[in-house]
Amino acid sequence: MDQRLAAVDIRGSKAHAQMLAQVGLITGAEHQTIVTTLDEIGREIEAGTFPFRTELEDIHMHVEQALIARTGDVGRKLHTARSRNDQVATDLKLFVRDAVARIDGLLEKLQWAFVARSARDLDVIIPGYTHLQRAQPVMVVHYWLAYCEKLERDRGRLSDAVKRLNTSPLGAAALAGTSLPIDREVTARLLGFSEPAANSLDIAGDRDFLVEFLFALSLTAVHLSGWAQEWILWFSTEFGFLKLPDALTTGSSIMPQKRNPDVLELIRGKAARVVGALTQALFLLKDLPLAYNRDLQEDKSPLFDAFETLAACLELSAELVAGAELRREQITARLEEGFLDATALMEYLIVHGVPMRTAHETVGSLVAACEADGCRLADLPLERLQSACEKVGPDVSKVLGAANAVNALASYGSGGRGPVLEQLARWQAKLGMHA
Amino acid sequence: MDQRLAAVDIRGSKAHAQMLAQVGLITGAEHQTIVTTLDEIGREIEAGTFPFRTELEDIHMHVEQALIARTGDVGRKLHTARSRNDQVATDLKLFVRDAVARIDGLLEKLQWAFVARSARDLDVIIPGYTHLQRAQPVMVVHYWLAYCEKLERDRGRLSDAVKRLNTSPLGAAALAGTSLPIDREVTARLLGFSEPAANSLDIAGDRDFLVEFLFALSLTAVHLSGWAQEWILWFSTEFGFLKLPDALTTGSSIMPQKRNPDVLELIRGKAARVVGALTQALFLLKDLPLAYNRDLQEDKSPLFDAFETLAACLELSAELVAGAELRREQITARLEEGFLDATALMEYLIVHGVPMRTAHETVGSLVAACEADGCRLADLPLERLQSACEKVGPDVSKVLGAANAVNALASYGSGGRGPVLEQLARWQAKLGMHA
Amino acid sequence: MDQRLAAVDIRGSKAHAQMLAQVGLITGAEHQTIVTTLDEIGREIEAGTFPFRTELEDIHMHVEQALIARTGDVGRKLHTARSRNDQVATDLKLFVRDAVARIDGLLEKLQWAFVARSARDLDVIIPGYTHLQRAQPVMVVHYWLAYCEKLERDRGRLSDAVKRLNTSPLGAAALAGTSLPIDREVTARLLGFSEPAANSLDIAGDRDFLVEFLFALSLTAVHLSGWAQEWILWFSTEFGFLKLPDALTTGSSIMPQKRNPDVLELIRGKAARVVGALTQALFLLKDLPLAYNRDLQEDKSPLFDAFETLAACLELSAELVAGAELRREQITARLEEGFLDATALMEYLIVHGVPMRTAHETVGSLVAACEADGCRLADLPLERLQSACEKVGPDVSKVLGAANAVNALASYGSGGRGPVLEQLARWQAKLGMHA
Amino acid sequence: MDQRLAAVDIRGSKAHAQMLAQVGLITGAEHQTIVTTLDEIGREIEAGTFPFRTELEDIHMHVEQALIARTGDVGRKLHTARSRNDQVATDLKLFVRDAVARIDGLLEKLQWAFVARSARDLDVIIPGYTHLQRAQPVMVVHYWLAYCEKLERDRGRLSDAVKRLNTSPLGAAALAGTSLPIDREVTARLLGFSEPAANSLDIAGDRDFLVEFLFALSLTAVHLSGWAQEWILWFSTEFGFLKLPDALTTGSSIMPQKRNPDVLELIRGKAARVVGALTQALFLLKDLPLAYNRDLQEDKSPLFDAFETLAACLELSAELVAGAELRREQITARLEEGFLDATALMEYLIVHGVPMRTAHETVGSLVAACEADGCRLADLPLERLQSACEKVGPDVSKVLGAANAVNALASYGSGGRGPVLEQLARWQAKLGMHA
Repeated sequence: MDQRLAAVDIRGSKAHAQMLAQVGLITGAEHQTIVTTLDEIGREIEAGTFPFRTELEDIHMHVEQALIARTGDVGRKLHTARSRNDQVATDLKLFVRDAVARIDGLLEKLQWAFVARSARDLDVIIPGYTHLQRAQPVMVVHYWLAYCEKLERDRGRLSDAVKRLNTSPLGAAALAGTSLPIDREVTARLLGFSEPAANSLDIAGDRDFLVEFLFALSLTAVHLSGWAQEWILWFSTEFGFLKLPDALTTGSSIMPQKRNPDVLELIRGKAARVVGALTQALFLLKDLPLAYNRDLQEDKSPLFDAFETLAACLELSAELVAGAELRREQITARLEEGFLDATALMEYLIVHGVPMRTAHETVGSLVAACEADGCRLADLPLERLQSACEKVGPDVSKVLGAANAVNALASYGSGGRGPVLEQLARWQAKLGMHA
Repeated sequence: MDQRLAAVDIRGSKAHAQMLAQVGLITGAEHQTIVTTLDEIGREIEAGTFPFRTELEDIHMHVEQALIARTGDVGRKLHTARSRNDQVATDLKLFVRDAVARIDGLLEKLQWAFVARSARDLDVIIPGYTHLQRAQPVMVVHYWLAYCEKLERDRGRLSDAVKRLNTSPLGAAALAGTSLPIDREVTARLLGFSEPAANSLDIAGDRDFLVEFLFALSLTAVHLSGWAQEWILWFSTEFGFLKLPDALTTGSSIMPQKRNPDVLELIRGKAARVVGALTQALFLLKDLPLAYNRDLQEDKSPLFDAFETLAACLELSAELVAGAELRREQITARLEEGFLDATALMEYLIVHGVPMRTAHETVGSLVAACEADGCRLADLPLERLQSACEKVGPDVSKVLGAANAVNALASYGSGGRGPVLEQLARWQAKLGMHA
Repeated sequence: MDQRLAAVDIRGSKAHAQMLAQVGLITGAEHQTIVTTLDEIGREIEAGTFPFRTELEDIHMHVEQALIARTGDVGRKLHTARSRNDQVATDLKLFVRDAVARIDGLLEKLQWAFVARSARDLDVIIPGYTHLQRAQPVMVVHYWLAYCEKLERDRGRLSDAVKRLNTSPLGAAALAGTSLPIDREVTARLLGFSEPAANSLDIAGDRDFLVEFLFALSLTAVHLSGWAQEWILWFSTEFGFLKLPDALTTGSSIMPQKRNPDVLELIRGKAARVVGALTQALFLLKDLPLAYNRDLQEDKSPLFDAFETLAACLELSAELVAGAELRREQITARLEEGFLDATALMEYLIVHGVPMRTAHETVGSLVAACEADGCRLADLPLERLQSACEKVGPDVSKVLGAANAVNALASYGSGGRGPVLEQLARWQAKLGMHA
Repeated sequence: MDQRLAAVDIRGSKAHAQMLAQVGLITGAEHQTIVTTLDEIGREIEAGTFPFRTELEDIHMHVEQALIARTGDVGRKLHTARSRNDQVATDLKLFVRDAVARIDGLLEKLQWAFVARSARDLDVIIPGYTHLQRAQPVMVVHYWLAYCEKLERDRGRLSDAVKRLNTSPLGAAALAGTSLPIDREVTARLLGFSEPAANSLDIAGDRDFLVEFLFALSLTAVHLSGWAQEWILWFSTEFGFLKLPDALTTGSSIMPQKRNPDVLELIRGKAARVVGALTQALFLLKDLPLAYNRDLQEDKSPLFDAFETLAACLELSAELVAGAELRREQITARLEEGFLDATALMEYLIVHGVPMRTAHETVGSLVAACEADGCRLADLPLERLQSACEKVGPDVSKVLGAANAVNALASYGSGGRGPVLEQLARWQAKLGMHA
C-alpha cells in the first residue's frame, strides 16, 4: 500500500539531501550520489522491478535500505537531522496535495459534463420537488446547475484545505527539532511549501490536513450519492425520466427483462466507504498524546481508500452525466400532473393586490375543486376563476400550465428560462467553454 | 429549541420586508408596521414574556402568527415571495455565522491563555514524548505553543467556512424562485451576505455550511480532548507534572483522599458529543432529494448541541490553562530519567563527522551500557565515551543532561530555548500582547 | 435530564438499604426511615413538587441530600458500602432494562399494525423491485410481513441485550469492592438481576449494555428509515400507491396544492439522531482507563435522546401503518408495466425442460421484441412464443400477466398467495391475533 | 477480495444442486457432474491455480462460468430457482458464521492468556484507579479478570448474533421466491441453518447479520483499545509497571535509547478501522429500498477488513498478554503513594459505628494532615488517629498500608485476595484449565 508513497518519499528525500549539501552536512558529491541513486530506485519502483521485502516495515525503510545497499556510508547520511516522523508527515502532505489536485480536476470535469449537456437540454421542463412531492416546474438545466453549485463548494473546500496544509514538516525531526545546522526554509521552498511549519511537537503528530481532506471527500461523496439517488428514481418505471447508457447498466442473473442502474447504485454505496474513512480517522486521533504515536500508521488506509474510491466515482459520474438521455416524451406526458402551476397562479393574484396568505387559500380551494373534478387549473373556465377571486383577468391563462409557469419565474437564481440561461452563461464562462 | 433562532428570524424578516417595500410589493407604511411589530415581538421573546404555543410547529410560525394577530392583512403580506424553505436557510446561515464568530473568539481566548502563561513557564523543561515514551527534552512552552498552532488551524477552518457560507438564500422561495419582481441583492446586502446564492433548487436543501461547521467543531473537539487527555496524565500521581485549581477538580463520594480532574474528563467526554453531531448530520443528508425535505428539521439539534457543548468546553479550557500550576520540583526530580540527551549526543557525533546511522548505533550501545550500570550518559567518564567513538572530545559535556540537550536544539520550530522564544514573540505579536 | 433516573435511583437505594439492614450495617428502624423518606421523595419528584437546586450536580446527589436533610445521621448511612460509581451503573441498568421493555412493546405494536391491515389488503398485488426496477409481482402483504421479520430480529437483539445486562453492579463500590460485610446476592435479587456482576473493576466503567442498546436502537432506526423512504416513494405522484391520513401530512407555506409526507420524513430524519448517539457512545468509550472516569457522565444524553426519539418514531409508525390506504386503482393501472411476468415465463420454460441459462436468453429476446412493439408478453400470439421456444404450449397463458405470475409463486417464503397466507397465519398466531 | 467467498460459494452451490436433484429439477447424474466439477474448481482456487479474469465481476460468476465451460448444459442448470441475490446472501451468512467461530476462538485464547498468567502474578498488588487517580489497591489479577469479563460479554454477543443469523436465504431467488418445486428445508439442513428464512423480500436485502457482527467486532475493538491504552501507560517511564517482549516493541529511527510499544499502539489504532467499518455499514444501508440493491456489493469490504483486522489484533493481544512481565520492584516502590488505604480506614470507622458521611470527613482530614506533613496514614501515631476519632483502636494497623487494605477487601467480586482467588478458580474451571 505504501508503494503509493514512493514517489513523494523520493521527492522529499532529494530535497532533504540538497539542503544537507547546502548547509555542509554532506558534500556535493555525496548529494549527487544520493540523488542519482534515489532516481534510479524511483524508476525501478515505478516500473515494478524493485524487489520489495516483507521484513521491512514500510516504503521509507525500503527506499533508505536500497540507498544504503547501493551507496554505503553516503546513504547512511541521508537520515541526518530527519526522523521517520517528519519524513512521513512530509510524504503524506505531498501525497494529499497531489490528491487534492486530482480530485479538483475530476470535480471540474463533472461540472463540465453538466454544463456541456445543458445546451441540448434547454427545451426540457421537469417537475421540481420538495418532500418528493411535485411542487413547481423548472428547466431541467436548473437541476444540472444546482449540482454544479454543490461541486463548486466542494472545490472551494479543497483549495482552502491545501492552503492550510502547505507548511513543511521536514526538519522537525522526531518531535523536538535538531541541534544540527539545517535550513528548513530551503526544503520548504524546494517542495513547494509556503513555509516551514512552526512547532516540531505539533508537526510530528498533526494529521489535521488528512482529516480535513477526508471531510471534503465525504461531503462530495454525499453530494454524489444524493445525485445518484435522484437519478435512480428518475430511471425507475414510475418516474421514467431517464435512459442510461447500456454500458453503465447491467442485467439480472434471473429476471430476463431487467436493466439495473448498477453504476449509480455503486456510486451511492461507495459514499458509505468515504464517510466510514472519515469516522475512522476521527476515532483514530482521539486522545493520542502530542507528537508521533504508532497508531498514526493507520491513517494511510482510510486516506488511500477514500481518495481512490471517490476518484473512481467522479470518473463514472462524468461518464453517466455525459451519456444519459432524457425521455422527453415520458416527462411531458405527465408534466401537467400535480398542479405545478398553482404557485404561479397564487403569485398572479398577489401581483393583482391579493395579500399572500389570502391568495394561498384561494388557490388551495381551486386546486381542491380540480381534484374533485379530475381536471387541471388550466381547464377551469375564466368565470370559475373569477368567482374565486374577482381580480382574475383573461391574462391569467399566461401563467397556467407548466410551460407558462416556468416562463413566469424571473427572480435571480430561479428555475425560469431567463435566469437559467443567465446562470448557464456564467458557468460556461467560468469553465472556459464556448456558449 | 427554535427560540435560539428568533433573533435571526426577525433580522431576516425585517430585511425581507424592506426589500418588498423597495420593489413596491408592500407600501412604506406596511413596511413600518411590520418592522415595529417584529421588533416588539423580538423584545418579548428575549424578555421571556412571549407566549409560546405548542400547537405551532416552529419559531418561524410563532413569529408570523404573532405578526398577523397584531397587524392583520399587513402581516399576511410578509411571506410574499418567500417560503419556509429559504427563510429557514437564511436563519440558519445567520445563526451559524454568529456561532462561528463566537467560537473564533473563544479559540483566540484559549490561545491567549496559553501564550499568557508562557512568560512564567520559561524556566521549565519537560520530557517530550513519542509513543508515550520519553524522547527528548523541550521547553514546556513548546507544548503550549503546539496547542496554539492547532487552534490556529481551527480558526482558519472557521473563517474559510464563513466565506463559503456567506451567500443569501432569501428569495429562493420554495425551490424554484418566484415570478414576483423581488430584488435579492437588496436582502443579501442588508443581511451582510456577499451576494445572493445562485440556484434556488440548491439553496432550498443546501446544508453544506452546517456540516462544514460541525466538522470544524469536531476537529477542535478532538484537539481539546487530546489536550485534556495529556493533562489528565500529567495530573496523575505517576506523572505528577500538574496541579489543577481546586474549583476545577472534585472529590470522591467514597474515597476520602481523592481529587479528580473532572473538568478535564468532561472536556474529553464532550468531544464525543460533537463528533456524534457530525455523524448525525452526514447520515441525515444521505440520499435526500434536491430541495427541501422535512428531514432537515433534524439539522438543528446537532447544530445547537455541538455549538453549545464546544463553546462551554472552550470556556473551561481557558480557565484551566490559566489556573493550572506546574509542579516544578516533581518534573525536575525525574527529568534525567529516560536518556533524553541521547539524540543530542548522536548529533554531536554527526557534527564531528560520524555518519548518521553509525552514530545512532554508537549511542545505542552506550545507552545499553548505562542501563546495565544504572547510570546516565552524563555519568560516563570521558574515556568510556571515547572508547565508543574516538571523535568525542571534552566538549561533549555541553550536550549531556537534559538542560544542555534543550539548549542545543537550534533549528526553526524546535523545542530549544532560542527557537521557542522566537515563536513566543510571534504569538504575542499576533495576539496583540505585550512581550 | 437526570430526573428520568430518579425512580430507578430510589428503587436501587431501597434495595441497598434493605440489604444493609439484613447484614446489620443499619438497624431495622433506620431501614424503615430510609424507605419511607425515599418513597416520599420519589412521590414529590413524580408530582413535580421536589425542589431541584442547580448547585447539586446530579439526581443521585439530590435524592441523598434530601434524605439527609430529612433524616440526619440515618440518611448519612445510606451510602455505606456503596459509591457513586456502582450506584450510577445500577441506575442505568435498571433504566435500560425498562427502556428495552418499552421499545419491545412498541415494536410488537408496529408488527401488530402490519399484520392487522393484512387481512384487508389481501386482494392487492404490487410490483416487487430490485435496484428500484420493477422485477416480479408480489402480494402487498408480502411487504408488510417483510417488515415484521425485520422488527422481529430487532426484538431478538433487545432480549439478548437484556440477558447480558442483567447482572447487578451494586456493592462493587468505587472500583475495588469493600471490606464491609455486605451481601450482593440480596440486592441483586431485590432488583430483579440474575446475579451480582463478578468484577468490581469491570463494573465501575462497564457501559457495554448501554452501547449494545444504542446499537439495537440504531438498527431499528435504519429499518424504520428504510420503510419511511419506501412509503415516501409510494406517496409520490409518480408511484401513487399510497394515501396517508391527513393528520400525518402537512401543507406548504407557499405552494397551495401540496400535501407533504412530513411524518415519514421525520421518521427518516430521526434515524440519524439514533445513529449519531451510537457513534457518540463508541467514541466516548475509546481508550478510557478501567473503572470510572467522569467522561461517562456523557453517556446519559445519547441514551435518553436515542431512546425517546425511537420510541416516538415507533408510535408514529404504527399510526401511519394503521391509517394509510392503498390506492388500488392506480396500482392496478400500471401493474402490467415492466414485464413483471418475465421470470414466471422463464420458469415455465425450465419446467418444460429448457436449461435455465437458455430459458433466460429466450425470454430476454421476447421481452426485447415486446419493447420494440410496445406490447406485453401476454399480448404475444401463441405462435410467436412457440417460434421462440418449441416447448411452449397453450397453458403458457396461465403464467402470463401479473396476477398469474403471483399465483405461480409457490416456494416457502415467497410472495405468492399461498405462501403469504401461510406466513400471515404464523404471524397472527405469534401475536395472539384472530385470523 | 471475493476469493475469500469461494469456499462458501461452492458449499452453497453443492447444497443447491443436491436439492435440485432431490426434487427432480436435475438428474442424479447431473448432480454428480456438478459436485465433482465444483470440488475441482474449489481445489484450484485454494491452490492458486484457478485463472481469474478481470472482466467477470465477482467470484460467483467465476465459479459458475468455469462450471459451464467444463460441463456445458449441465452447468447452465445450476442457477435454476436461484438468483445472485439469495446466493450472495447465503455465501455471506456462511462466511460470517465461520468468522464468528474464529473470533470466538481467539477471544477464548485471549481469556486463556489472562487466566494462565494469573497464577504467577498472584503476589502482585497494584493501585486501582478511578479518574486515572490512585484510588484503592487491588490484586493485579483483578485487572486480568476484569478483561476476561469484557471478553466474555463479547463472546455472548457473537453467539447471539449467530443464533439470529442462522436461517437460510437459499431459494428466495431474486426477491419473490419461485414457481419451481424447490424444497428450501433441504438446503437449509444441508448448510447447517436452523430453518429457511421466511420472507423472500426481506431475505434479498437483509444485512442485519452483517451489521450486527460488525457491531460485535467494534465493541471488542474498543475493549482491546482500552486495554492497549492502559498497558501503554503502564509501559511508560512514569508508571513503569510493565516490561514488553522485545519482539513486540521497536526502536526509533533517530533516538537511540528508545523502545516503543508499537504493537500496543497498532492495536489501539486498528480499533478505529473496525468502528469505521460499522459506520460504513450503517450508512450504506440507510434508505435502501427493500430487496436487493447493488450498493450492497459494498458490504464486503468492511466485513472482510474489520474481521481480519480484529482477528490479527486478538492474536497479537494474546501474545502480548503471555509475554509481558510486571516490574514488581517499581510497582512496589511507589505503592504507598496516593493513600490507597484511605477507604479501608473509612470502612474501619464505619464498622466501629461511625456514620458513613462522618467517617468520610474524618479520613479526609487525616489525609490532609498527612499531605501537609509528607507522611502516610500508617505513619500517624495511634493517638493522632484517636484524636480524630475516638473509635479507633490499636487494631487499626491491620487495615493500613496497601497490603492490609487489599486483604481487607472481602465482598463478592472485589479486588481482595479471597474474592479474586474465587473468581480465578471460576475462570479456570470455565476454560477447562488446571488450577
